[in-house]
Amino acid sequence: MENIQRTEVGTLGEFGLINHLTKHNEIKNSSTLVQVGDDAAILEYPNNQIAVTTDLLVEGIHFDLMYTPLKHLGYKSVIVNLSDVYAMNATPQQITMSIAFSNRFSVEALSEFYDGVYAACKKYHVDLIGGDTTSSQKGFIISVTAIGEVPQGKYVKRSGAKSGDLICVSGDLGAAFLGLTLLEREKKVFLETKGVQPDLEDQNYIVGRILKPEARKDIVAFFAAENILPTAMIDISDGLSSDLLHICKQSKKGCVLYEEKIPVNENARQFAYKLELDPTACALSGGEDYELLFTIDEKDIEKIKSNADITVIGYITGEEDGKKIITRGGNKHDLIAQGWNPIQAEKN
Amino acid sequence: MENIQRTEVGTLGEFGLINHLTKHNEIKNSSTLVQVGDDAAILEYPNNQIAVTTDLLVEGIHFDLMYTPLKHLGYKSVIVNLSDVYAMNATPQQITMSIAFSNRFSVEALSEFYDGVYAACKKYHVDLIGGDTTSSQKGFIISVTAIGEVPQGKYVKRSGAKSGDLICVSGDLGAAFLGLTLLEREKKVFLETKGVQPDLEDQNYIVGRILKPEARKDIVAFFAAENILPTAMIDISDGLSSDLLHICKQSKKGCVLYEEKIPVNENARQFAYKLELDPTACALSGGEDYELLFTIDEKDIEKIKSNADITVIGYITGEEDGKKIITRGGNKHDLIAQGWNPIQAEKN
Repeated sequence: MENIQRTEVGTLGEFGLINHLTKHNEIKNSSTLVQVGDDAAILEYPNNQIAVTTDLLVEGIHFDLMYTPLKHLGYKSVIVNLSDVYAMNATPQQITMSIAFSNRFSVEALSEFYDGVYAACKKYHVDLIGGDTTSSQKGFIISVTAIGEVPQGKYVKRSGAKSGDLICVSGDLGAAFLGLTLLEREKKVFLETKGVQPDLEDQNYIVGRILKPEARKDIVAFFAAENILPTAMIDISDGLSSDLLHICKQSKKGCVLYEEKIPVNENARQFAYKLELDPTACALSGGEDYELLFTIDEKDIEKIKSNADITVIGYITGEEDGKKIITRGGNKHDLIAQGWNPIQAEKN
Repeated sequence: MENIQRTEVGTLGEFGLINHLTKHNEIKNSSTLVQVGDDAAILEYPNNQIAVTTDLLVEGIHFDLMYTPLKHLGYKSVIVNLSDVYAMNATPQQITMSIAFSNRFSVEALSEFYDGVYAACKKYHVDLIGGDTTSSQKGFIISVTAIGEVPQGKYVKRSGAKSGDLICVSGDLGAAFLGLTLLEREKKVFLETKGVQPDLEDQNYIVGRILKPEARKDIVAFFAAENILPTAMIDISDGLSSDLLHICKQSKKGCVLYEEKIPVNENARQFAYKLELDPTACALSGGEDYELLFTIDEKDIEKIKSNADITVIGYITGEEDGKKIITRGGNKHDLIAQGWNPIQAEKN
């Protein structure tokens, strides 16, 4: 919240604030007929199907403003929703963005947040079409809904994996978790020894992965260009093991995952060793990587090989074969998901 | 929160909770191809346009659980969004529902909330297609997005009013505000004198208007049946004056509103007098009535007359004529909107 100028939100009023936050909003898609400023937005999709997804992000639960710049937060809030749309093999077209905030936030702070929102919209060619701005009793709350289109019948669910399908993943995994671990460590040091500046050790890659992730628009475009239709797909938000188990459960299948095939960035791997963390555990359970995890028919293997950013990490089996991981040492273990963050106790 | 049984949310886990809350979800619309349980829902609208709206509701700002039953809250959360879709002359088809909550809420409490959500979905023939369930540090937070369809070119914006158009409103106004006033009064008495039971004076109508509002599905159906296309439309959430001023501003027009024409329910009027409140002021500034305010071409007057639930309350003028109200006494005043609730100070 280090702003030279501070305008109290109350001086603008609700509609003044909305005007302020949306005055630079540009419409990019011809399917957007009516945008922000009416009771609802109006969209038109004559020949396509439509994907809709939504996320609710709460300060203190999903993000920590102590080390998250508001612009990055705005950017990431959009990205995590676009990632869900891409995970349906659809292309995002519109988002709605609602925020609730206390008087701790100035107009400048909210503008910074929206700068990030608009940067993501611009990069991913997505229109902001509506939302809500309101008060909260405590902290910052963000709700985003993203809407995308997909050609008739080309959407990909989690439930279509078949025995023998190859399990593939884009990019690399685990770095976002390592970035978060580093930020949390430095926050702790800072709180214990006021005045000590955070030491991020030039770990730009892992810090960037947690603070400013990207969604895999390129992978969905690659599928279209190469005429590949994955049999199942999900984005990796909870961690590879949890998300692969979703595909298995919804497809009623088993899987074999090879530890040695799991792609981990070299900087991330070295940093994990430094913290005495297992890079594979970070990839399996870390989450927030926003890579795409998908299954393809074996016949598509040649097409996939041309994309250096896609790695085959295992294959789908029958449900009765269970969900397994083969370690580097050649041992076979059950693949298990880590637990979910428990519900918070209310602090008054 | 008075439940005989109390199941801690933590015992179910995130996915268990989602399963629990969505197991009775029924799909009603053929446009819903993929619903809850994937990265995004998939919708299909071959020949129509689509309306999207969203609201974020925060405990302590938008609702008070001291006098709002959770089932009513779930119902109302849906209704306020459907009302925005109807205000575009569209028919709601799908909603997403996201909630964040602290450990103050049991599974039974959340189920009660969802009972209300499903009751609204059933009554309005709308599908719940997705959402998010997460933790909050404080209180209950609700984010709803509603999606509707409208035949090509039939959507109605706020900006289309023309000089000479008639200003019409459905139902009656001000009762929701009076209901809220009564509930707030009884809350105050209860807090000051513990043990005193609230006295709602058999004011079922006004209390029902605030706790369990309905959206005007019937009015949009009437427009379709009678081949009426309003020139501008908005739902009354902020109060008649504020919402009529939105139409005037976005249409770049003025208006003349007749105080004596504003429809007020007789019970509400009597109760207003009892509280020494002006019923017209309640209608103009009270808000939360969720009636439809719209303008029609003068030629449609005969069609409107057949619907006893629609009242003509004034007419649209040129922008230079200003926004005016003619009082019962025949005086002409400027129509002004009441202020917006200021941003809350953060309480820790």
